[in-house]
Amino acid sequence: MSYTDASPLVLEQTVEKAHHAFAVYKNCSLQQRYALLRSIAEELKKDEDILVAAAMRETHLPEARLRNELGRTLFQLESYGAAAASGRWLDATIETRPNASGAAVNLRKTLIPLGPVVVFGASNFPFAYSTAGGDTASALAAGCTVIVKAHPAHAETSTIAAAALARAVKAQQLPDGVFSHVYGASFSVGEYLVKHPRVKAVGFTGSLRGGKQLFDWAQQRQEPIPVFAEMGSLNPVFLLPDQLQQQALSLAEQLAASFTLGAGQFCTKPGLLIALQSEALSIFEKKLAEHVQKMIPVPLLHTGIATAFLQHRQQALQTSSVSVLAESDQDSTPQQGRPTVAMVTASDWLQQAHLHQEVFGPYTILITCKDQDEIAKVANALDGQLTTTLMATEKDLHDYRFVIDLVKEKCGRLILNGVPTGVEVCKATQHGGPFPASTDARFGAVGEDALKRFSRPICYQNWPQGWLPAELQDDNPLQIFRTVNGQLTR
Amino acid sequence: MSYTDASPLVLEQTVEKAHHAFAVYKNCSLQQRYALLRSIAEELKKDEDILVAAAMRETHLPEARLRNELGRTLFQLESYGAAAASGRWLDATIETRPNASGAAVNLRKTLIPLGPVVVFGASNFPFAYSTAGGDTASALAAGCTVIVKAHPAHAETSTIAAAALARAVKAQQLPDGVFSHVYGASFSVGEYLVKHPRVKAVGFTGSLRGGKQLFDWAQQRQEPIPVFAEMGSLNPVFLLPDQLQQQALSLAEQLAASFTLGAGQFCTKPGLLIALQSEALSIFEKKLAEHVQKMIPVPLLHTGIATAFLQHRQQALQTSSVSVLAESDQDSTPQQGRPTVAMVTASDWLQQAHLHQEVFGPYTILITCKDQDEIAKVANALDGQLTTTLMATEKDLHDYRFVIDLVKEKCGRLILNGVPTGVEVCKATQHGGPFPASTDARFGAVGEDALKRFSRPICYQNWPQGWLPAELQDDNPLQIFRTVNGQLTR
Repeated sequence: MSYTDASPLVLEQTVEKAHHAFAVYKNCSLQQRYALLRSIAEELKKDEDILVAAAMRETHLPEARLRNELGRTLFQLESYGAAAASGRWLDATIETRPNASGAAVNLRKTLIPLGPVVVFGASNFPFAYSTAGGDTASALAAGCTVIVKAHPAHAETSTIAAAALARAVKAQQLPDGVFSHVYGASFSVGEYLVKHPRVKAVGFTGSLRGGKQLFDWAQQRQEPIPVFAEMGSLNPVFLLPDQLQQQALSLAEQLAASFTLGAGQFCTKPGLLIALQSEALSIFEKKLAEHVQKMIPVPLLHTGIATAFLQHRQQALQTSSVSVLAESDQDSTPQQGRPTVAMVTASDWLQQAHLHQEVFGPYTILITCKDQDEIAKVANALDGQLTTTLMATEKDLHDYRFVIDLVKEKCGRLILNGVPTGVEVCKATQHGGPFPASTDARFGAVGEDALKRFSRPICYQNWPQGWLPAELQDDNPLQIFRTVNGQLTR
Repeated sequence: MSYTDASPLVLEQTVEKAHHAFAVYKNCSLQQRYALLRSIAEELKKDEDILVAAAMRETHLPEARLRNELGRTLFQLESYGAAAASGRWLDATIETRPNASGAAVNLRKTLIPLGPVVVFGASNFPFAYSTAGGDTASALAAGCTVIVKAHPAHAETSTIAAAALARAVKAQQLPDGVFSHVYGASFSVGEYLVKHPRVKAVGFTGSLRGGKQLFDWAQQRQEPIPVFAEMGSLNPVFLLPDQLQQQALSLAEQLAASFTLGAGQFCTKPGLLIALQSEALSIFEKKLAEHVQKMIPVPLLHTGIATAFLQHRQQALQTSSVSVLAESDQDSTPQQGRPTVAMVTASDWLQQAHLHQEVFGPYTILITCKDQDEIAKVANALDGQLTTTLMATEKDLHDYRFVIDLVKEKCGRLILNGVPTGVEVCKATQHGGPFPASTDARFGAVGEDALKRFSRPICYQNWPQGWLPAELQDDNPLQIFRTVNGQLTR
């Protein structure tokens, strides 16, 4: 099957349709949005087998993982829909106390949707962060219409998912422009969509280069618009000495599994390990090497990623100061990723900017430090990250309080004694971080708070009850917590 | 007294100081932040007389207005400090239920400050939106350090306020870099600050040109940063026919007072009046003219604004399709703003883009429409606005539902039967709107929610109690509402 890039005419019609559908969809109730998301989940579920089969062909990911990921996708649709319907995310606020001069006040604030949103899915999660994934689910839950540009690396999977979405939109008797799907292997399709004046926000998961390009286009528009691009991350792991001393073997096992999970194609893959030189570190290295040597190379998602992996891995390993700590004993084909752990001293790493970049695939690098000062220098030199992990005992936390202080400024999720891979879908999660991890660290891409990305506050002043949205009416028909005259109440 | 632009060396030292002070200030408790804001209010209060005297000299605003504005400034400091201390704005969220696979979960999310913030104050509110104004108050309340670039039009007032701030910082035994104050009449000072890698956000109140320039610099940085620029707004007022029929005289009186309040130098000045041609409109016009003719021109804030007012007013009035509905009977000096109401038909206004721009000062323009269709076209052609007002009866609301629908997309505050001037400082207010009203419609510049602009979420995974911030600890020492395992509770 071949997929042709959408022409400017088709793109124009698609955006107009999304714009006109928005005029209808924005006025649907929160319950109607929830019904749509539930309906999408049902339609996807019906196509589970063909979705998984297509995704296996297109992404080389194993069946169990894909079924699991589809389940997560359905959960996202259900939980974001439920969150939308609950109205709690709207932070509804009512003020009716007279002001300091005794004048009457009647101000009521809630959130309204931004407008049509363009979503660029990720290649590494063909379900959960793609066509019917988190960005689509949260934009629809927030009341926006959505245009998905299919990821060319899984266009067939995307087409099947889009058909399920379209059936759900129809079943809910909504205009078909509530969800649209276009193909585009070339940059110009994305450029056309992001620069279109009717488009009001962008969601993206992928590379730094791609996300930054969309961001730049969006900021250079006459009317700049928000871009939520979740891009690269090294997800540094600090192996602090007391913990390393006590847990060298188990840390080696955990981290070997984590950096190669999904062939290292996770945005939260631990791509930097940082430790003090010590006897315990030698034991850790030896054990990590044993694990990695036994690993079997697996095919990467698509040729583009395989080529980039080979190239970036080679570039790192050819750096004179970098050595190979361990790699899989088995040769790999050009389509496969060969699990690799590189090693470098802190002083060398600090001088080599290209080693600070993400190598997407089953690769990580161990930075060995002479002393605390070098650990501080590495922590200081880090860019923004999705996650940062400390492997630490209570003693380590006291001795390395400065590390906590430094890395808190640089990440969205700060983990103690756990691997960064594995992102829970819940309100307490933060999936996003300071640039270049994402373009807007004030929002996250996972969990119900992701809805907030696609909305903005509006204040109603002096409106009679019948003209207010339900969440702002005096009798609180949604029965939600609201801030009324300074008090949270329902 | 003369004020010299800060040199690059001074700017560099200032930013470094703000950066180092941030390392201390970010770890202060919420109560300590509140104590600082209260202390700033106390120190300002001590200097009330010299602040007001300096502001009167520099801005030509009357004493009563300035004393009132200073009172508002103190209220902002107190109420944002109290809001910060309450912890409720942090949206603290805790998840400890096992996940779908039965694995243990321990995720806790709160907000942390962004880092040093640069604040550019407004000339039209020398207290409330300037040196110790809303942006400074909310950034400090959010835990950020602040660098204010003094507004050159009231540098002396700014210097006195900055000294009060510095005394408060000292009294609270905080490093002096928590608040810094620099002079800069040239663009290069602002450019240096906004482009500095250690600066993490920008607050600005002023012109579209100025705000957009700061936004562009900030987005073009290697690490883009948020810019909260509150810029121009026309604040359209729709005078719907039934209401006009019933209230022509009182509407004329209200609007005459509103568009000339503070010599029309309010960001919420009603700068566009839109109405259907009718007999009632003629009565309104006549009454509005009577009010305006009797008005006495008053000096504008500074020469730059007076010159721009003359120029933009003249440009509008020289447009062949524009007539003068009314102006003050008294001649004005070049430093004064002569109250003026222009008039144009909808079809002419729609064709003249320069009439869509804000004329800062005591000027407004009445757009007369032939029919509902022209009203819809005008509503459609509006850019983003801080406010939009409908003067309407219940009948009008039904007949003009399409106007509500259109303008909701274009403003931050939607007013029914009230004038847009007058902005309450409370959580229910939204002061901000779609571009070009502000650069980030997802946040507001007034009320305690303004704090959120200067913070971002962070998620703690698996941290022991003693290492968590107070708002995330199990026993809830702040006694705030939090979302714990999906339920809002305290």
